[in-house]
Amino acid sequence: MKNIYLIGSGKIGFNIAIALKNSNISILGIHSRNKESGNRLAHKVNSKYFEELIIPRKTDLIIICVPDDEIQNVAKKIKNSAVIHTAGCSDIALLKDCSNNYGVVWPIQTFLENKKANLKNVPICIEANNKIFQKKLQSLFSKISNNIMNINFKQRQIIHLSAVFSCNFSNYLYSISEEILSKENLDLSILKPLILETTNNVFKYKSKNNQTGPARRKDFGTIKKHLDLLSLKEKKEYLKIYNLITNNIIKIYES
Amino acid sequence: MKNIYLIGSGKIGFNIAIALKNSNISILGIHSRNKESGNRLAHKVNSKYFEELIIPRKTDLIIICVPDDEIQNVAKKIKNSAVIHTAGCSDIALLKDCSNNYGVVWPIQTFLENKKANLKNVPICIEANNKIFQKKLQSLFSKISNNIMNINFKQRQIIHLSAVFSCNFSNYLYSISEEILSKENLDLSILKPLILETTNNVFKYKSKNNQTGPARRKDFGTIKKHLDLLSLKEKKEYLKIYNLITNNIIKIYES
Repeated sequence: MKNIYLIGSGKIGFNIAIALKNSNISILGIHSRNKESGNRLAHKVNSKYFEELIIPRKTDLIIICVPDDEIQNVAKKIKNSAVIHTAGCSDIALLKDCSNNYGVVWPIQTFLENKKANLKNVPICIEANNKIFQKKLQSLFSKISNNIMNINFKQRQIIHLSAVFSCNFSNYLYSISEEILSKENLDLSILKPLILETTNNVFKYKSKNNQTGPARRKDFGTIKKHLDLLSLKEKKEYLKIYNLITNNIIKIYES
Repeated sequence: MKNIYLIGSGKIGFNIAIALKNSNISILGIHSRNKESGNRLAHKVNSKYFEELIIPRKTDLIIICVPDDEIQNVAKKIKNSAVIHTAGCSDIALLKDCSNNYGVVWPIQTFLENKKANLKNVPICIEANNKIFQKKLQSLFSKISNNIMNINFKQRQIIHLSAVFSCNFSNYLYSISEEILSKENLDLSILKPLILETTNNVFKYKSKNNQTGPARRKDFGTIKKHLDLLSLKEKKEYLKIYNLITNNIIKIYES
């Protein structure tokens, strides 16, 4: 699979293209609805931008890097010897009419706009509709990560869901902290040793044993003070989150 | 302030005693309601365990390391030239009848049972009822941390509240991920590069710009799949949290 064609130039397309290029795997062409980012990415990885979805005959593998709900639309328009998508929560069967060899390659990582991520240690989940193609995908993507895993759809969905809690939702909690602190002219960096210790602990011990804070020790006086502070702020969403998570933690350690 | 007397042998007492001892500051005595942990800690830091709350005459500083809602009870029983507590969310005025010099020393860190924390880079918040005593506390505690900060009560409460979101609540989210993954025989370590990248990003960029995931991109198909997966599980609390945070993120990026 030497001749790769990429569809999409968003964050995941950007990172996969760059990782492939950095592993000396050339990209035959890149199609994107977004002319500007498509052209820019093609330029960056010494590839060619295709304004129309035209797939060169010699293409060995198409990698679809479009939003989840557009995979099906794109799939309708393509036929090839091998096709994969890169979505954590989408079935590979979406691609069954495009090819005899279809699958998914999903890196468990959060990608920011125009920021290169290092994929070397990132687990990449692979699933394919047949063993031979699965092996080929393993072989290709082991060049960009040393952590290739065969993961079925059920597991992949569960990993995706757990990633939402651990990454997307914890980032949202950090943004609440950042906002609350900024009103007192304090910076989130004041919590850096605390946040780093929290994440360190979670890989050393069971997270249930790492739980600390007023809810864990049923310190209702402090909880009351926090609720009063949050009531003074304009956002009642934060109060709701505080109440919900606090009550859940209290319940866990009730016995 | 050479003769220090510590009240409490819980996680915070344990860590402050050890940090002081490691900085060659001796501890005159330790009182704790818990005979076993009190004795053990006194032994560990070459100090003396006091079963009764008897404060030696030559004591220069009493450090109260008891749960927040017991500070007042302890305060009623002591008189000394200088007294501090170590609670993030409690007023120093609780100590005003014990001494002419009172204050707080609060390290912004999460402490686990019987686990020594390195306090060297941990911000320690100091507040005192007078400037001279404040200087003395700065001087003493700068021996155990190189990040001593003068923080007033309002700010300290806000830092404490933000720490609950960023540490206690994010650890709770990790525990949800851990539980969900374990049902598919997967380990939380699969999310390690993701979680580390998430915390790295938060100190490099604004957390609002770091937000990724289905809620951020209004990917309602994926959100529906996640809700279906969570409905299959026995815990409706997780569904509530997913809905609440997802709706909040959608609202933030609506415009």
